[in-house]
Amino acid sequence: MANIAMLGYGVVGSGVAELISRNRYKFKDELDEELVISKILVRNVDKHLNNKNRGLLTENIEDIFNEKVDIIVEAMGGLNPSYEYIKRALNMKKHVVTANKDLMAERGYELLQLAKKNGVTIHFEASVGGGIPILKSMNECLVGNEIKSIKSILNGTTNFILSKMSHNGMSYEEALKLAQEMGFAEANPESDVKGYDAARKLSILSTIAYNRRVDWKNINIEGITQIDSDDFRYAKMQKCSIKLLGISKVSEDDIYATVMPVMVKQDSMLGKIENEYNAILVEGDAVGDVMFSGKGAGMFPTASAVFADIADIVENKREKTITFSSEKASINKSWNLKSKWLLRIKTQNRVEIIESISSSFKSCYILSNSVSGNKEEVVAFVNADNEDLIDEYIEKVKSEKNVQSVKKLLVLDK
Amino acid sequence: MANIAMLGYGVVGSGVAELISRNRYKFKDELDEELVISKILVRNVDKHLNNKNRGLLTENIEDIFNEKVDIIVEAMGGLNPSYEYIKRALNMKKHVVTANKDLMAERGYELLQLAKKNGVTIHFEASVGGGIPILKSMNECLVGNEIKSIKSILNGTTNFILSKMSHNGMSYEEALKLAQEMGFAEANPESDVKGYDAARKLSILSTIAYNRRVDWKNINIEGITQIDSDDFRYAKMQKCSIKLLGISKVSEDDIYATVMPVMVKQDSMLGKIENEYNAILVEGDAVGDVMFSGKGAGMFPTASAVFADIADIVENKREKTITFSSEKASINKSWNLKSKWLLRIKTQNRVEIIESISSSFKSCYILSNSVSGNKEEVVAFVNADNEDLIDEYIEKVKSEKNVQSVKKLLVLDK
Repeated sequence: MANIAMLGYGVVGSGVAELISRNRYKFKDELDEELVISKILVRNVDKHLNNKNRGLLTENIEDIFNEKVDIIVEAMGGLNPSYEYIKRALNMKKHVVTANKDLMAERGYELLQLAKKNGVTIHFEASVGGGIPILKSMNECLVGNEIKSIKSILNGTTNFILSKMSHNGMSYEEALKLAQEMGFAEANPESDVKGYDAARKLSILSTIAYNRRVDWKNINIEGITQIDSDDFRYAKMQKCSIKLLGISKVSEDDIYATVMPVMVKQDSMLGKIENEYNAILVEGDAVGDVMFSGKGAGMFPTASAVFADIADIVENKREKTITFSSEKASINKSWNLKSKWLLRIKTQNRVEIIESISSSFKSCYILSNSVSGNKEEVVAFVNADNEDLIDEYIEKVKSEKNVQSVKKLLVLDK
Repeated sequence: MANIAMLGYGVVGSGVAELISRNRYKFKDELDEELVISKILVRNVDKHLNNKNRGLLTENIEDIFNEKVDIIVEAMGGLNPSYEYIKRALNMKKHVVTANKDLMAERGYELLQLAKKNGVTIHFEASVGGGIPILKSMNECLVGNEIKSIKSILNGTTNFILSKMSHNGMSYEEALKLAQEMGFAEANPESDVKGYDAARKLSILSTIAYNRRVDWKNINIEGITQIDSDDFRYAKMQKCSIKLLGISKVSEDDIYATVMPVMVKQDSMLGKIENEYNAILVEGDAVGDVMFSGKGAGMFPTASAVFADIADIVENKREKTITFSSEKASINKSWNLKSKWLLRIKTQNRVEIIESISSSFKSCYILSNSVSGNKEEVVAFVNADNEDLIDEYIEKVKSEKNVQSVKKLLVLDK
């Protein structure tokens, strides 16, 4: 019998409990193991009076640790008290399964070390990409590869908002409101729309991919709050969509890592990922490009990943658990490939700025104001060898009189 | 030290040897295992005189079995003598890794049973989808799901041909010739273009997904040899591409399984899979739709999957090897969902056939001959509750005078 205690019984927790119950006898024949939930920690028992598992609920964490359990599933989210509870569980030599990307991005290294010290494991497949089996695939199935780059859509909320802005002509505010009404965005959407959530997931992915710790706080992070309907109009001129991409790329010395809105070709694989879906495009030196996509969140997709982790523990695969390297990665925040960029410069002096753009870049395509639809803005697609050159130009042009604001957006051609 | 003997040293074998050499010390720290190739079976040693591994080559299978090896990698392809060699290896309690889809589709059940009896494993990730980690993902990461359906592009050769016909306006013959010149198609392309290769892979996937043996010979198999440029023209009218899909779907009593050219929406995920790429869209009851895509063949993509299998064995994960169920699936060959179909009926009597179509189906859209461009063919999109109704109609209309031929094509709306 495998005894499982759960911390948290919200959307993810309920899904996990349901999957455990559906699969209770899954390993009976093969391993003579039966899956049993022994206790569930909730904040308020009274809220679950009609729940079929109400006999298992407790508000007292001591009830969890007093129980004889093999696996603790953390489905509370947030840093505290999850961090303390998981540490305690590991020190008591319990295996831990968590979907908590915030915690794994902040404290993953420490917790994995602690698990190792105690001869147990911490599994966290659900922390990135929801139900998409990406961590195990990268860790086990691509083990013969050196991973060269990752391009990913890791946040369903922002992808939903951008999809609605693109296809339904909604403003950012309207799309955010719809996302909140549909339960895709939280009342306080900051962590999603500002790109923090995607950055935490990208840091977990990249840390495993490159075997160097990629601290999410060192990643370049731009959210989608500045994206407006004009950006979509310009994107469509380039046959592009706008996606909040998490990109990382390894070079000899450092790792380029960014989360930012990017124009991607509408008919590319990433350009096709709509609404709440996530996708991860991994480039390995042997395998080439491999893409994984699916629902990045939600009750059962997340529970599907959590359950796979539980199954892994039940089947006793301790040998190849994921580790985070002790070596911290040096992070490069600047896109270092020759690329096309959209520049939008608000100014009263179009002529001067157009002159300045065309003399600053080898090639550029400047929209006439009848096309851009804005007489007080210069809109141009420019080609530059790297992002630094763009940033230098932006710094320069910002200091000029009559420039109110400058905005840039990478155009990913393939 | 993990000793590896290889059978075959062609494209895949060379890639595997290279990856083993690159990753020789991969498991040194963790497991104190070093990967060493001890012998390689080739057909003709003289062909490899300048090869860096020539000291390991032998034409004599006995040299392979006399060597003290832990793992035998079969990269010869075909049924014979692979089948005999692998049986012998398993009986000698050697682990086996193979990329051989023909063999696993034909003899998988027997070989997996034999491996189990001998306490060893046979791994075959590379047999489906090349470098795409699909078998392990399905077997381990989606373990909490009931798999409901699979939609897949499993043959790179035909996908390449169809891409060239669609985007470059090539005829089938021209595209096949190009594929052969580029090494994507063999001199005898029958197994690819007739759909047998895709059917074998679909049988392996479906056998694992539904835990019932899906015999590839019971699958409905249609190839792409009948697809012409007009089909692409009609597909584009529906904003569709044509893809050779492997589809399977479980119902209470049986499994629907087919390999056939299908019109899929251009902007769907499968519609975006071009050239030699493969993709597998798995629908699980918990996870929803998950898609995996990547290169379905080629030296290093295939070697990437073979290497992951070797790593699995080295890391000693015997617990959760794939098994094929002893229960044979009952296969349904007829598409049983309400769908749209393209009908092309060659006839001298358009009026009569148009009358017959419009009275036989609840709704239909018949192309005028100025649109279809053919006065001796009626082209129509019809809606029907299931494929049997379409087939009954085709049988009926075929018996009418003045009908030369009838062709049908499923239009997949989502």
